[in-house]
Amino acid sequence: MNFMNNKTSDFRTETDSFGTIEVPSDKYWGAQTQRSVQYFKIGDERLPRALIRALGIVKRCAALANAEVVNLDVTTAQVIAEVAQQVIDGRLDDHFPLVIWQTGSGTQSNMNANEVIANLACERLGGKLGSKIPVHPNDHCNRSQSSNDVFPTAMHIATVEQLHQLLIPSLQHLHQVLFDKSQDWADIIKIGRTHLQDATPLTLGQEFSGYARQIQMGLERINDSLQRLYPLAQGGTAVGTGLNAKPGFAEEFAYQVASFTGLPFVSAANKFEAMASHDALVEISAVLNGIAVSLNKIANDIRLLSSGPRSGLGELMLPENEPGSSIMPGKVNPTQCEALSMVCAQVIGNHVTVTFAGAQGHLELNAFKPVIIHNVLQSIRLLCEAANSFTDYCVVGIIPNVERIAELMAQSLMLVTALVPRMGYDNAALIAKTALMNGSTLRETAIASGLVTAEQFDAIVRPECMLSAR
Amino acid sequence: MNFMNNKTSDFRTETDSFGTIEVPSDKYWGAQTQRSVQYFKIGDERLPRALIRALGIVKRCAALANAEVVNLDVTTAQVIAEVAQQVIDGRLDDHFPLVIWQTGSGTQSNMNANEVIANLACERLGGKLGSKIPVHPNDHCNRSQSSNDVFPTAMHIATVEQLHQLLIPSLQHLHQVLFDKSQDWADIIKIGRTHLQDATPLTLGQEFSGYARQIQMGLERINDSLQRLYPLAQGGTAVGTGLNAKPGFAEEFAYQVASFTGLPFVSAANKFEAMASHDALVEISAVLNGIAVSLNKIANDIRLLSSGPRSGLGELMLPENEPGSSIMPGKVNPTQCEALSMVCAQVIGNHVTVTFAGAQGHLELNAFKPVIIHNVLQSIRLLCEAANSFTDYCVVGIIPNVERIAELMAQSLMLVTALVPRMGYDNAALIAKTALMNGSTLRETAIASGLVTAEQFDAIVRPECMLSAR
Amino acid sequence: MNFMNNKTSDFRTETDSFGTIEVPSDKYWGAQTQRSVQYFKIGDERLPRALIRALGIVKRCAALANAEVVNLDVTTAQVIAEVAQQVIDGRLDDHFPLVIWQTGSGTQSNMNANEVIANLACERLGGKLGSKIPVHPNDHCNRSQSSNDVFPTAMHIATVEQLHQLLIPSLQHLHQVLFDKSQDWADIIKIGRTHLQDATPLTLGQEFSGYARQIQMGLERINDSLQRLYPLAQGGTAVGTGLNAKPGFAEEFAYQVASFTGLPFVSAANKFEAMASHDALVEISAVLNGIAVSLNKIANDIRLLSSGPRSGLGELMLPENEPGSSIMPGKVNPTQCEALSMVCAQVIGNHVTVTFAGAQGHLELNAFKPVIIHNVLQSIRLLCEAANSFTDYCVVGIIPNVERIAELMAQSLMLVTALVPRMGYDNAALIAKTALMNGSTLRETAIASGLVTAEQFDAIVRPECMLSAR
Amino acid sequence: MNFMNNKTSDFRTETDSFGTIEVPSDKYWGAQTQRSVQYFKIGDERLPRALIRALGIVKRCAALANAEVVNLDVTTAQVIAEVAQQVIDGRLDDHFPLVIWQTGSGTQSNMNANEVIANLACERLGGKLGSKIPVHPNDHCNRSQSSNDVFPTAMHIATVEQLHQLLIPSLQHLHQVLFDKSQDWADIIKIGRTHLQDATPLTLGQEFSGYARQIQMGLERINDSLQRLYPLAQGGTAVGTGLNAKPGFAEEFAYQVASFTGLPFVSAANKFEAMASHDALVEISAVLNGIAVSLNKIANDIRLLSSGPRSGLGELMLPENEPGSSIMPGKVNPTQCEALSMVCAQVIGNHVTVTFAGAQGHLELNAFKPVIIHNVLQSIRLLCEAANSFTDYCVVGIIPNVERIAELMAQSLMLVTALVPRMGYDNAALIAKTALMNGSTLRETAIASGLVTAEQFDAIVRPECMLSAR
Repeated sequence: MNFMNNKTSDFRTETDSFGTIEVPSDKYWGAQTQRSVQYFKIGDERLPRALIRALGIVKRCAALANAEVVNLDVTTAQVIAEVAQQVIDGRLDDHFPLVIWQTGSGTQSNMNANEVIANLACERLGGKLGSKIPVHPNDHCNRSQSSNDVFPTAMHIATVEQLHQLLIPSLQHLHQVLFDKSQDWADIIKIGRTHLQDATPLTLGQEFSGYARQIQMGLERINDSLQRLYPLAQGGTAVGTGLNAKPGFAEEFAYQVASFTGLPFVSAANKFEAMASHDALVEISAVLNGIAVSLNKIANDIRLLSSGPRSGLGELMLPENEPGSSIMPGKVNPTQCEALSMVCAQVIGNHVTVTFAGAQGHLELNAFKPVIIHNVLQSIRLLCEAANSFTDYCVVGIIPNVERIAELMAQSLMLVTALVPRMGYDNAALIAKTALMNGSTLRETAIASGLVTAEQFDAIVRPECMLSAR
Repeated sequence: MNFMNNKTSDFRTETDSFGTIEVPSDKYWGAQTQRSVQYFKIGDERLPRALIRALGIVKRCAALANAEVVNLDVTTAQVIAEVAQQVIDGRLDDHFPLVIWQTGSGTQSNMNANEVIANLACERLGGKLGSKIPVHPNDHCNRSQSSNDVFPTAMHIATVEQLHQLLIPSLQHLHQVLFDKSQDWADIIKIGRTHLQDATPLTLGQEFSGYARQIQMGLERINDSLQRLYPLAQGGTAVGTGLNAKPGFAEEFAYQVASFTGLPFVSAANKFEAMASHDALVEISAVLNGIAVSLNKIANDIRLLSSGPRSGLGELMLPENEPGSSIMPGKVNPTQCEALSMVCAQVIGNHVTVTFAGAQGHLELNAFKPVIIHNVLQSIRLLCEAANSFTDYCVVGIIPNVERIAELMAQSLMLVTALVPRMGYDNAALIAKTALMNGSTLRETAIASGLVTAEQFDAIVRPECMLSAR
Repeated sequence: MNFMNNKTSDFRTETDSFGTIEVPSDKYWGAQTQRSVQYFKIGDERLPRALIRALGIVKRCAALANAEVVNLDVTTAQVIAEVAQQVIDGRLDDHFPLVIWQTGSGTQSNMNANEVIANLACERLGGKLGSKIPVHPNDHCNRSQSSNDVFPTAMHIATVEQLHQLLIPSLQHLHQVLFDKSQDWADIIKIGRTHLQDATPLTLGQEFSGYARQIQMGLERINDSLQRLYPLAQGGTAVGTGLNAKPGFAEEFAYQVASFTGLPFVSAANKFEAMASHDALVEISAVLNGIAVSLNKIANDIRLLSSGPRSGLGELMLPENEPGSSIMPGKVNPTQCEALSMVCAQVIGNHVTVTFAGAQGHLELNAFKPVIIHNVLQSIRLLCEAANSFTDYCVVGIIPNVERIAELMAQSLMLVTALVPRMGYDNAALIAKTALMNGSTLRETAIASGLVTAEQFDAIVRPECMLSAR
Repeated sequence: MNFMNNKTSDFRTETDSFGTIEVPSDKYWGAQTQRSVQYFKIGDERLPRALIRALGIVKRCAALANAEVVNLDVTTAQVIAEVAQQVIDGRLDDHFPLVIWQTGSGTQSNMNANEVIANLACERLGGKLGSKIPVHPNDHCNRSQSSNDVFPTAMHIATVEQLHQLLIPSLQHLHQVLFDKSQDWADIIKIGRTHLQDATPLTLGQEFSGYARQIQMGLERINDSLQRLYPLAQGGTAVGTGLNAKPGFAEEFAYQVASFTGLPFVSAANKFEAMASHDALVEISAVLNGIAVSLNKIANDIRLLSSGPRSGLGELMLPENEPGSSIMPGKVNPTQCEALSMVCAQVIGNHVTVTFAGAQGHLELNAFKPVIIHNVLQSIRLLCEAANSFTDYCVVGIIPNVERIAELMAQSLMLVTALVPRMGYDNAALIAKTALMNGSTLRETAIASGLVTAEQFDAIVRPECMLSAR
């Protein structure tokens, strides 16, 4: 890069319809970005990388689509596309300084992209930074576009890409590991627990097959929602009508994005819905919320089953990755479960934020765009990385304590359930309650009842025969 | 009905494994129901009708399926099915006294169904109330079943039926009316508003087409989720293994339910997931949350557009159904919008309840079943009835104030946008700002700028040409 | 009551500014109530009794205050006050048919009160039902009032009364029982658990003292919030200015309410805030949310500690109130914990509803009043009754399994922590890890390490000396 | 700083009870921090500065308190305090690499502080990095402490400091500006709006006085909650008993913190509650939620009132800080309102996260500490900075459009309300409805009704007399 055309000062002058403003001379952004920097000193949550990349994709594909529908000369389109590629690649992230807490349409970030691309394009074509000649941020980079369709389009692109690149692979990985465990542990018979109370037996493999299934269904839910994320708002321009765009632009744009990303994006059938609401993002947020619900349950179960080591349930032994306590020597804790469940708490709260934001649009625009995409992308990333961490540093390495499992299973009174078809619920209940009161075994109590012989008991009360319908 | 076998008292004695207990003699419920009445005096939220009906369907279909797999004699199965039909039909609702705030598995309500059916079946077959002979609540009515599979199954059946009977038709109705409006008003050009600020024009029909689309997508979302509600947990019995059920029972049961309801229920592929989690209900709750988000936006827009009558936007006139104020004579308010948005607030909160409940299952059981189904069914009913009320008493009768709409549209400075392709963004911005500052019209300011002639202005700045890509 | 003045028909004609409408002749309500019945067929959640009572209190006290400031003749004031007393006493509840899902200002329920009181007052004074002579629902019953100040005032009165009558006593009761347990069990030393993993010991009394403290703090929080619920909006009339009320009315009204209820209600310092926002109700909802958080934790702990009976932690034995399973004989479950935690889930969701509703007021009115008060009062009632049930049917009867507690405590490796001041964290950690790996006792491993003698170990590692700073 | 004692490599070896691990040689952290870096690659949300500072305060004050109770030699205490001061001052932030998504107790961040301080102290005293001699991270820096009391203590300190330094001043500032506006605009009479419909008049000053009051009450709520944040858990050590701390340590520690911060911190009365629950943080989160509710309402009102400029309500003119649209030239938007309402959405969701996390503690520890404090501190900061931005770049510069305000007020039919005391509600309603139907003025319609003369009308219907009780 060459910032040397502004040697005499650390700032250069940029202009917009409000007049002039000083901009750091080593930055490519323009006047509107600078105004946002000055007027929105709120928090430090910057626009996520995935969204900056998506803005780059929009600018690149819009330029090419405009050229295709003969609404932009090929040279300008080409230089915009080339510079946009740098935005896509992350090489210009330092020139995207804006935070989430700006205008609710994301206009300032759209203009940030327009300004950076225009300045770099001008520079390439021999123009001066800030001159807007020969490439103007609005008239060329934003041609046939409005923040009102650009930003929602970028939100969909970023979400879809992150789902495909981050969350889906991580859940597939977790699913595979859980599924493998369910196969490996198909013969480890353990006590079931309902209401946290002793219940009839199942295998550890069966227990984990439920977890695997939860993840698999989560992947199905993501897939269903993706169908409503592929449609793009681009082409609606200011309020959904397509004013100032050429016929065919919307479709050509979607085709360009689909080609570039290799994902089946299409032009939204109704641009008014696609711009005034963000129902599709509320939906994917709800799916993430549901995945958090599943993961929280799984993480909770695993820390319950590994409680101990001596005075808890102690059925599972988790990998020991680090010391657990600063005061209690030798303590090891289910820290991966904890990190994951904290992420679940965050995702569940983020979903309320997205819901609240999604419900409050007004007329042709929902002015909560940056907060919506911030939360959706944060949830995707956190679920992905926490699931990976949980899988690799916890689930993969779990070792069943088979002696403990066998001991807890054998002493359960709920094996009495197998006697019900023979003697009826009421007699069986009496035996279980008597055994508990007397501290005796189920077997001796049952035989003492005279309702079964020892032979019959041994033939019926066999945990290995209680694992399926028979 | 004949309660006369208990003439000498207002109470009769019932028994369970805990011993005897007095039950009102005019009620068919038994000991366990009575214990719940006494130990859970919490709130007045009773089990919803739709769920009692679903419990009846489960008992009916389980009896028939047991007979089919030769695990129950046909006579007993038949009498259970007949009495269960009365439960289904709502003729025994007075015998289902339990509230939501009971055991988290719904066991007490499952036993309520078992006890009522057993007592009525005994009575029909000449037995005595409370005798459990010849039909026992556990051994016959609950045969091959556990609350742990019965209650989740009933939750799915009730939810699916209510979606099909209530919510889907009401949203289809609303969609149709919104769609019709979008057609009827295709030629009414109005000002668009983004950020609540004047923007470029669109037609009122386009604006309403966005609302129609939101509802249509909501229906799609329901349909996707239904695919995960059709699978039923029945056959998993206590912990998912199917202990004490016969092979083939689960599938035969699902077939019976599908036949009875005419809906494509199937047996869940993994019973451990279907019993230990309620992810499918969390999912449909999320869909309801999303529909609330859509409806809240639509209701808000309509009350904004109808604000006035004299000092607001005043573009729409809503049907006047009732006086609006106890102190301000002649006031009329957007009350249907308000009722609907209050329902949306409730549904959004209910979803958090369901999320919280769904996330906290332990091992083989989620012990938040009644609160989950209570909230899901309440949300479905409220959305259905509020949408119907909103459609019939508000949307259908909306009349556009065409003079007002034309006036507000004509004076908007944002028509300047059409000049951008001709003169560029910066010149156009200068004209708009000048007109605002001077209180002049866009036309006179533009012509005064020398950048367009009057003829050119009139040829370009035509709202009727700003409604689509051109 | 005498409905006989309308013998020839089941309906009579009532009128309002919209014209005539037929009303059931056995009901005292008037035209506006009837319109609401017809136009809002949404759900079955009726206005809560506590709120109808509060509306009665408002009407009674407003009439008396108007008389006091010489804005209503004493006879009319007196008869209004007498009929309002019947509303207060619940004798007219059948005449309050409206649901929550009505106009967002509660105007229709305010008019319901005005109409019922006017009709009964007319009847008493020899007038005809529906004639509004000599007592008019608006001009007399609603004199100096607007729904916009009446309804918020009733919301505060109902909330404050229910807190004092229901929730505070139930939490005090729970606190006392928890506190008593903490005293009774001051000498039962048990293992502590952090991260669900074995930790250093504490007494069961100490553990329960934490629960008691949580409840005590909850009571403090309620008390703080009450200070912001005592101020009443009454006197603000339509938009907060007090138009059509006499000077002194607001203060006299608050005095009347304080006298009647015996609670320190006052007139709100700023009526604009008191009518346009419901921040004080959002606040108490947040306090209820916090109490739910506390109770959920306590209920969860107790079901964890009572897990078993044989294959869980088994430290506590809960009262057995009913059979726990329809399939597993002899099973007993922590059902009171479950009911309580379901209530907590509901309260947490209700708080989101209230938050969402509270955040969306527009200008001089928040049009979510009925849904806000519905949720607040439901949360109060459910928390009260669930806490009572939990206290009386669970906590009171808990019995510690002292043998089990002693056994689990003795085998914990975390007693090693007491050795840290002597030998340092690293040595102590090595001992604990060695003992775990070898399955040996802490004592034998420590002595084998050579870092302590048997005598030293026995002097230091004494659980009874590990219960406080020393 | 001097990292030169590790010249030959970019890494040095550190050890903990799990063995050795390589640590970057230019970092002061030790083995446990490094393990967390490796095992928790989740997200990029680092521990907030305010919390790192608070950990420094804890370490400093614990060392001094230990010295005071003769449990640590003065030299060691002094060097720990000095290094801790650097942590407090932010000079060592690069040595705190850990993210929120770690162990739920915050143990790893507590050890991070212990390790950094120990290493720097060793270095100062001539020891070798990683040698733990003469200052050991656990035995000295963590003496008499456990993560289980350190982290909750730091959470309280950070929250209290941030409330005092950030949120309280910003809300006081906003309150002052709103209050000033309410004074300045005391004579601007405008139309009131309820249900978004025209209502009786009030002054713009009165309207803003309601906003000012909302903020004032928010400050009161913060103050109440602070009383429950001042108590500190420190001294409870591992499970609340105080094992391994000396008598008096807890109180001396709180005294040290109070002295250092100038804030009235005290030792918590019950350490079990203070460690196993985070109810006080759930409470302050609820207060932040309530403040978000207030601010969302205010921001929404202001964007409604400033809608236009030509086709909206147009009563207020907001400062124009930047261009509003990338496609519509000259457009200006209420961007500060939008940024603020997005922050409100975030805070409301964060509160659900905190609620969910707070409700799920187990026994002696709530293992959601980092996510709780992350959300609380984010909410405080965002509310503070968004409120400041909103105040300074929007509220301060609002200019009422007095012509427009007068015009909208004058044409309102709701001025009819003033006639009610004279002619009764029903007559007044008829006049208002007739005027609306005929498009006539209230005055001409009222006079035409014959119920008032022109003189009477002019004497009664005077907006300037409708602003208070009279």
